Amino acid sequence: MVRYKAIISYDGTDFSGFQRQTNARTVQEEIEKTLFRLNSGTFVKIHGAGRTDAGVHAYGQVIHFDLDEERDLERLRFGLDTQTPDDIDVIRVDKVSENFHARYCKHSKTYEFLVDLGRPKNPLMRHYATHFPYVVDVTAIEAAIKKLRGTHDFTGFTASGTSVDNKIRTISRADVAFDGENQLLIFTFTGNGFLYKQVRNMVGTLLKIGNGRMPVEQIDRILELKDRHLAGPTAAGNGLYLKEIIYDK
Amino acid sequence: MVRYKAIISYDGTDFSGFQRQTNARTVQEEIEKTLFRLNSGTFVKIHGAGRTDAGVHAYGQVIHFDLDEERDLERLRFGLDTQTPDDIDVIRVDKVSENFHARYCKHSKTYEFLVDLGRPKNPLMRHYATHFPYVVDVTAIEAAIKKLRGTHDFTGFTASGTSVDNKIRTISRADVAFDGENQLLIFTFTGNGFLYKQVRNMVGTLLKIGNGRMPVEQIDRILELKDRHLAGPTAAGNGLYLKEIIYDK
Repeated sequence: MVRYKAIISYDGTDFSGFQRQTNARTVQEEIEKTLFRLNSGTFVKIHGAGRTDAGVHAYGQVIHFDLDEERDLERLRFGLDTQTPDDIDVIRVDKVSENFHARYCKHSKTYEFLVDLGRPKNPLMRHYATHFPYVVDVTAIEAAIKKLRGTHDFTGFTASGTSVDNKIRTISRADVAFDGENQLLIFTFTGNGFLYKQVRNMVGTLLKIGNGRMPVEQIDRILELKDRHLAGPTAAGNGLYLKEIIYDK
Repeated sequence: MVRYKAIISYDGTDFSGFQRQTNARTVQEEIEKTLFRLNSGTFVKIHGAGRTDAGVHAYGQVIHFDLDEERDLERLRFGLDTQTPDDIDVIRVDKVSENFHARYCKHSKTYEFLVDLGRPKNPLMRHYATHFPYVVDVTAIEAAIKKLRGTHDFTGFTASGTSVDNKIRTISRADVAFDGENQLLIFTFTGNGFLYKQVRNMVGTLLKIGNGRMPVEQIDRILELKDRHLAGPTAAGNGLYLKEIIYDK
């Protein structure tokens, strides 16, 4: 048995998310269908580092899978890249140790979230940024986003009813930039793991703060009281990008 | 009768071009359907400055149309913007003189053409840039693109069988930039008018020159001999953007 790790990118627009579901098109299913063909009709299960939701895009999703025999890496990458549908690309394939697990091996993830502030919105970005055509005070967002850095219990920013026990995570990078030419607000978050819908809930809250409908200190309250009701709405998935995953040595 | 000029943007991906056709979804048809509703069920014909092809995008297409009565401009813009499908936006509406004609009044047009040089390609750009995964010498393209500036007979760069008589046009801006971060080559052309498929044929030729399969001097030959067979292939429509139209005073 040989274990392979692959870095893939995809346009999330036409997917019901990464994880296989009944009666819905998913990234996992499309890649497993392709591997089935490349593996002489024998099913190969893939494991993804992050289970992105419907509409969420990825530039650097990581998956792993096992094949019975050793393959030429570039031929395997090329086969996967060209035989998966157009909205999935396979950037890189490496042979890894059997101990490697895309999800359970320690890693940091970087997410980007794009918000289109344009009025009217840019129709070419409708699947690639969340439209927020309201006044935004970037300085307030900068003051609020700083408070998310570091190690906190992020219970107040996750979907209620999440099954994960430990909700303490560390965010090493959390910042916002404004691209005036394209009227885009670009959020970047790096951390050792994110809870379900955490990034989208943080962005929804930060936008509400930027719009003056919540004080900057609301972040402290959400972290302290761990109450999802204190946070803003969940920002739409179409603005979210899984950018990069870096595994610990 | 009151004449209105509107600036519109659209994502060309799901359109068979601007101009109305039987049994195909077009920008013109979608806007005319919306105007029909906004005009109490009376048909309103629109005229576009440029008839973009299938897959071609626009940030600054200009149209004009006539209504019987004077309307509040922002209400008209808002109605058109929100009632057209998601892949069309109406940026601005102005009242203009009855002598204004989007197509026939003198103007300059700016087109942009994006080429994705990434290997593998970026799946998120598959509808928004043309993939060209080959070696490209940007210096050769720069030397060649300069030769397109000025007033020339562009017969060699238009589709054969074009019905337009005068094929002399003036290009005031023609340049190329390389965006290393996104592996994008960005062509920009401004001129007082472009022939059918001229921009896509110029880009196809410039890419062939950049790839070393044609000499830089081929541009001189095409302009001089006016022979379409000397030029490169027509680049795909998905990389082309109608960026801006400026009317003479």
